Amino acid sequence: MKMPQPDSGLIARRSKIAQDLRELIGDDAVLDDESERRPYESDGLAAYRALPLVVVLPDSTAQVQQILKYCSAQHVKLVPRGSGTSLSGGALPVEDAVLMSVARMSRIVEIDLENRTARVQPGVANVRITEAVKEHGLCFMPDPSSQAISSIGGNVAENSGGVHCLKYGVTSSHIVGVEAVLPDGEIVRMGGAYAGAVDGELDLCAALIGSEGLLAVMTEITVRLTPAPPAARVVSLGFRSVEEASRCVGAIIASGVIPAGLEFMDRRVIDAVSSMLGEQHPPSVEAILLCELDGISTEVDALIEHVQSIAQTFSPVDIRVSSSDAERERLWKGRKVAFGAMGKIARDVYVTDGTIPRSKLPDVLQRIDTLSKQYGLAYANCFHAGDGNLHPMVLFDSAKPGDLEKVEQFGADILKACVDFGGVLTGEHGVGVEKRDLMSYQFSDVDLAQQYRLKLAFDAQEQLNPGKMLPASCGCFRSGPLPSAYYESEHSGITRF
Amino acid sequence: MKMPQPDSGLIARRSKIAQDLRELIGDDAVLDDESERRPYESDGLAAYRALPLVVVLPDSTAQVQQILKYCSAQHVKLVPRGSGTSLSGGALPVEDAVLMSVARMSRIVEIDLENRTARVQPGVANVRITEAVKEHGLCFMPDPSSQAISSIGGNVAENSGGVHCLKYGVTSSHIVGVEAVLPDGEIVRMGGAYAGAVDGELDLCAALIGSEGLLAVMTEITVRLTPAPPAARVVSLGFRSVEEASRCVGAIIASGVIPAGLEFMDRRVIDAVSSMLGEQHPPSVEAILLCELDGISTEVDALIEHVQSIAQTFSPVDIRVSSSDAERERLWKGRKVAFGAMGKIARDVYVTDGTIPRSKLPDVLQRIDTLSKQYGLAYANCFHAGDGNLHPMVLFDSAKPGDLEKVEQFGADILKACVDFGGVLTGEHGVGVEKRDLMSYQFSDVDLAQQYRLKLAFDAQEQLNPGKMLPASCGCFRSGPLPSAYYESEHSGITRF
Repeated sequence: MKMPQPDSGLIARRSKIAQDLRELIGDDAVLDDESERRPYESDGLAAYRALPLVVVLPDSTAQVQQILKYCSAQHVKLVPRGSGTSLSGGALPVEDAVLMSVARMSRIVEIDLENRTARVQPGVANVRITEAVKEHGLCFMPDPSSQAISSIGGNVAENSGGVHCLKYGVTSSHIVGVEAVLPDGEIVRMGGAYAGAVDGELDLCAALIGSEGLLAVMTEITVRLTPAPPAARVVSLGFRSVEEASRCVGAIIASGVIPAGLEFMDRRVIDAVSSMLGEQHPPSVEAILLCELDGISTEVDALIEHVQSIAQTFSPVDIRVSSSDAERERLWKGRKVAFGAMGKIARDVYVTDGTIPRSKLPDVLQRIDTLSKQYGLAYANCFHAGDGNLHPMVLFDSAKPGDLEKVEQFGADILKACVDFGGVLTGEHGVGVEKRDLMSYQFSDVDLAQQYRLKLAFDAQEQLNPGKMLPASCGCFRSGPLPSAYYESEHSGITRF
Repeated sequence: MKMPQPDSGLIARRSKIAQDLRELIGDDAVLDDESERRPYESDGLAAYRALPLVVVLPDSTAQVQQILKYCSAQHVKLVPRGSGTSLSGGALPVEDAVLMSVARMSRIVEIDLENRTARVQPGVANVRITEAVKEHGLCFMPDPSSQAISSIGGNVAENSGGVHCLKYGVTSSHIVGVEAVLPDGEIVRMGGAYAGAVDGELDLCAALIGSEGLLAVMTEITVRLTPAPPAARVVSLGFRSVEEASRCVGAIIASGVIPAGLEFMDRRVIDAVSSMLGEQHPPSVEAILLCELDGISTEVDALIEHVQSIAQTFSPVDIRVSSSDAERERLWKGRKVAFGAMGKIARDVYVTDGTIPRSKLPDVLQRIDTLSKQYGLAYANCFHAGDGNLHPMVLFDSAKPGDLEKVEQFGADILKACVDFGGVLTGEHGVGVEKRDLMSYQFSDVDLAQQYRLKLAFDAQEQLNPGKMLPASCGCFRSGPLPSAYYESEHSGITRF
């Protein structure tokens, strides 16, 4: 499939807007050549692409404010973007909208050790915060797999999760306050300025977290820093069936332990990883749980024993426990390369993201298996079991006629199953364009209408991130038809994780 | 000062509304006699009083819906109320508004042990949740001092704190989802239904937490349950100066320990408590820190040692460590009776609530001391030091002309000092009527206008809890003049804590 050619009206509009913006914020902060815009055509949901009208790269709150004031006055829509790692198309450009990348706003403004907070610009990569404070025994706890690249602004916009969020909470638990620019260019400060409670206001900060760029553009974020756990060990548990592994997840959590991470990999993932790393697992192992425990050393040792004794009830056939940091890293390695390893054995992989009550894990996994047979498409499972956040990977071949439509339908059915079993459409990847039209499966019209009113309370003109998250059914007038997904080259459909 | 007499228009209006509501929800659920309405005239901020127009006591979501539909159609305003323990006047009645108490909605609907959640009605007292699950080793962690009476609905509305919230987070960290009725009578479900992440929606649930009854009436709340810590010990540290004690707070937190509680009492509080309990402290002790550590037993023992060694830097003159639960309770007793003990030595006590960055503790305590001399009013300090949440108590005599005005001014100056040092107006008591007109000291006009738009996105007609939280300066058309505080009998001004 070819991209549609832009019309001449769009070209004239681009030229005028680019010129105006250059006068406002300088030549080097505005990109309008096609070759310069091309790198921004997708985010992590590579199946969707669109060239932005113009790309702007502000380097300060004042520039963000100038850009938004201009766009608001000229009725130009705007898509905010962090590092562009969204897996749901949250940062997907819109053809007649300016794309604002905050990549140049990447300064750690202030670290306050005594109050254990850091004030950072939105373009700072997640992992840089921990790097900046680790010599003081602190860290920024949320750890999405993309943390080496993904920006804190994007993390807040998507309310990102990560392995450690089972124990420490997702991004929202680690945000103290936000400075943001409203669509009309006004600067709002939300939340507190320190590591205490946020109280005593209508909680704009809480509303902004997870709002996927629909409400305002964040320009400064104050995050909570956490003492790095002094010790951590991991136990790898191999079970004879997916069901035993998933029942073991429930038993570990029900016993009162909160692991620092509790991850699940099925046989297909184990095989893909084994052929990549050359590590062997007994052939009777159908599923592996990786369970990390952290805290002070004696506590961790006691918890490792405790988890192993719970696992015994489900007759594991393979148990490996780390006794050094090197061993711990080796045990984690399989999980870390899992998504890449799947990409090596399948032509295309579609990863989705739903969350269910932990107790429903066996039922939902069973349902996915049934759907797989029904669609005639293979799948693999590798996910955050502890908090019930599934990432089923559907294997397909985009070159095969009909496969793409089938995989999208399969993915939608998995998410519907999550909702049917009392769960939600997403755990950490967000709604974006990917799940937008499924929102009405989870939410009633009344629920969606209220979400839309919340949107309008921040962005009455619907300037920001049009067409994302809110389906047309709630009355959102910018929710046009979804852009169609397309695949043009080998592996283009592999969604990074 | 006498209460103003209601006019005849109000009487006719009351009679009509009471009759209509009786037809809708039954005779016994509607109170309009003055003697029946009198018990609702105040909440925990006893200095303010107003008789509600009518009191309604719904026992189901359907009845809440009927009442709100009626009120919306008839343009009758409504004040929601939990147990009425708000210390900021959040549940203070408004003379021409219906007061809706959720006291009859006090059922624990469902406990889900495997997913560690409980679904409860808003009128359930906080402590009942823990009572219902403690046999399974679980608890509901937020523990406001009022927890024996205060309702979970009120806790969510005020985003309540408590001693344990330093380690475990305030109420917002423990709420999974909410069912609420919008002012027009529509039912909205917000957040997830289980102990996972809340993601994938514009976060109505987060906006509702801490919204002080301004947005919607909660009818069902799903809370997160937490494993009860297996062990806990407390160390009491007596210092020669307030400054040494407050610097020790900073040092403990900066060392990476997160105590389960870290409380501060100054000499005036120590004396009041001693004369009540007959317990002695060395005369050189000017401030006491109570520091609780919890976790598994060996961890707790190690942490107790660690905290003591940090404290040594500040030359404590008295150290007491619990070695049994009985001793632990004895050490906590002084803190628990502190506010009552102050009430016995002063005619009236005004308690306020501001939060500051921990590092500013010495500065703010110094400022309060200066203000005390300036106003000629004594004060005492007893507060959650670990999260910088201050509760200065100003001692005064409401029978003495001018004292009341002075104490209100003193309280306002303390809160302004909190903001000046980078803090916020409240930590856990909320804004209500008490701090409403100080909001513009903390927030810019732009910030407040955005909070007001959020209010209108839920409650466009401003039906709910009029006159609370949002000051007139933001354009909120229901923000009339504040009701005046008054004191008519001995100790009427004692604010419970």
